[in-house]
Amino acid sequence: MSETIKKRLGKVPSIRRLPLYLDRLIDCKNKGITIVTSSELAKEMGMLPIVVKKDLQLVEPPTKKRAGYLVDGTIDAIQSFLDWHQPYSAVLIGVGNLGSALLGYHGFNGINFIGAFDIDKAKIGQSIHGVPVHDLNHFSSFATKKKIDIVILATPASVAQETVNKISMSPIKAIWNFTPAKLHVLPHIALQREDLSAGLAELCAKIKHNKQQSFF
Amino acid sequence: MSETIKKRLGKVPSIRRLPLYLDRLIDCKNKGITIVTSSELAKEMGMLPIVVKKDLQLVEPPTKKRAGYLVDGTIDAIQSFLDWHQPYSAVLIGVGNLGSALLGYHGFNGINFIGAFDIDKAKIGQSIHGVPVHDLNHFSSFATKKKIDIVILATPASVAQETVNKISMSPIKAIWNFTPAKLHVLPHIALQREDLSAGLAELCAKIKHNKQQSFF
Repeated sequence: MSETIKKRLGKVPSIRRLPLYLDRLIDCKNKGITIVTSSELAKEMGMLPIVVKKDLQLVEPPTKKRAGYLVDGTIDAIQSFLDWHQPYSAVLIGVGNLGSALLGYHGFNGINFIGAFDIDKAKIGQSIHGVPVHDLNHFSSFATKKKIDIVILATPASVAQETVNKISMSPIKAIWNFTPAKLHVLPHIALQREDLSAGLAELCAKIKHNKQQSFF
Repeated sequence: MSETIKKRLGKVPSIRRLPLYLDRLIDCKNKGITIVTSSELAKEMGMLPIVVKKDLQLVEPPTKKRAGYLVDGTIDAIQSFLDWHQPYSAVLIGVGNLGSALLGYHGFNGINFIGAFDIDKAKIGQSIHGVPVHDLNHFSSFATKKKIDIVILATPASVAQETVNKISMSPIKAIWNFTPAKLHVLPHIALQREDLSAGLAELCAKIKHNKQQSFF
C-alpha cells in the first residue's frame, strides 16, 4: 500500500474526532486551564494518550516543552484546520422529523442555519427552531442572494437525487447527505454521506467484543 | 506506536464501511451476479480497490482465484462478523423529533425495534412508525419480559445520564447514544456515541480540500 493511501486512510478518523477535542479544550479554557497534557485529555475522553497525540499532530498544535498543549493555541489550531473560525452558513432541505431534529440539534459548532426548504405548503412560511421554512422552488433565487456553504439534505431517499440535480447549478460548496440514497454530484461540490448504519456496525463489533473479549 | 494499537486504529473505519459493502453485495445477488472483483466494487462505490481489499480482508471473504469474491459467501462473512444473521432487538428512549426519525429510518439492516419509551403522557400509548410507545417507568419490567440488545438513546442531553443510570440495572447489552452528552456506563454495556459533529468535521476538511486541492 502506498504511503499516500496509508496517510489518507489514517487521517479521516482523526479528523472526525477533532470536534471532541475542541469541546474538551473549550471546557478547559472556561475553567481557566491554560496548558493540558495528552494524558489528561486522554483520561478525560476515555482514550489512549498515543491516539490523542496522533490525532492532534494533524493540526500542529503549539506545545510547551514537557508541559503539554497550550489550550488557547490548540483551540485555534483545530479551528484553523477545519476553517471553523467563522461558522459555515447552511440550509436544510426536507423539514420532516429528521430535518426538524437537525435544525434543533445543539451539538454543531461549525454551522449557522440561515434557512430551510420544503415542498409541503403546510410547512412553508413556518419557523422551526427559529429557522424560516421557504418554498424549495425559490432555492435558486435564495442562493444568489445569500451565501450558502452547506446544504443539509434530509428529504425522502426517493427524491434525494432529483433534489440535488435541482440545486446543483446554484453556488453551493457542499452537500451533507442524511438520506440513505447514494448521490452523484458535480466535482466542485464536496459530498459527505451521514451513514447511520456505520455507527451501528461499530456498535455491533463492540457487542461482539464484550462477548468474546478478543476483538478490540 | 505498538502493532496492537495500529491494528485497532485501522479497523474501525473498515468496520464502519461494512454495511455499505453489504448493501452493494445484496444488490449484486438480486441481479443474479455470483462473483464480483474488488475493482468492480470499488468503481461502484467510488472508492479505491486497495481500500476495498483491505476492508473486506477483515471478514475473511471466500474468493475464487483470479475471479473475485463469491457474492453469497461474502454477504455471509460480513453478517457473521457483525452478528447480523439475526437482527438485534432494540428499543428507543426519547420519542422527540430525532427519536421519531430513527424509528422510521429505513437504512438499518441489523436491528428490529420492539418498543419505544418516553415520560410524556401524551406520547405513551401511541404508535410511531408501527412501534408502540411505553412509559419509561415500566422499562425494567419490560426488559425482564423481552430480550433487549440495544437501547437507542435520543432524550434531551440534560437527562441522558440519569436515564442511563435508571436502565443500567436491566439486562441490556449496548447503548447507542444519539445525544451530545458524554455518558458513563457499566463495563459490561457496550457504548457507541453517534457524533454528528464528526461528519461535519470530515465534510469541512473536504470543503477545504476542494479549495486547496492539497489535503486528501
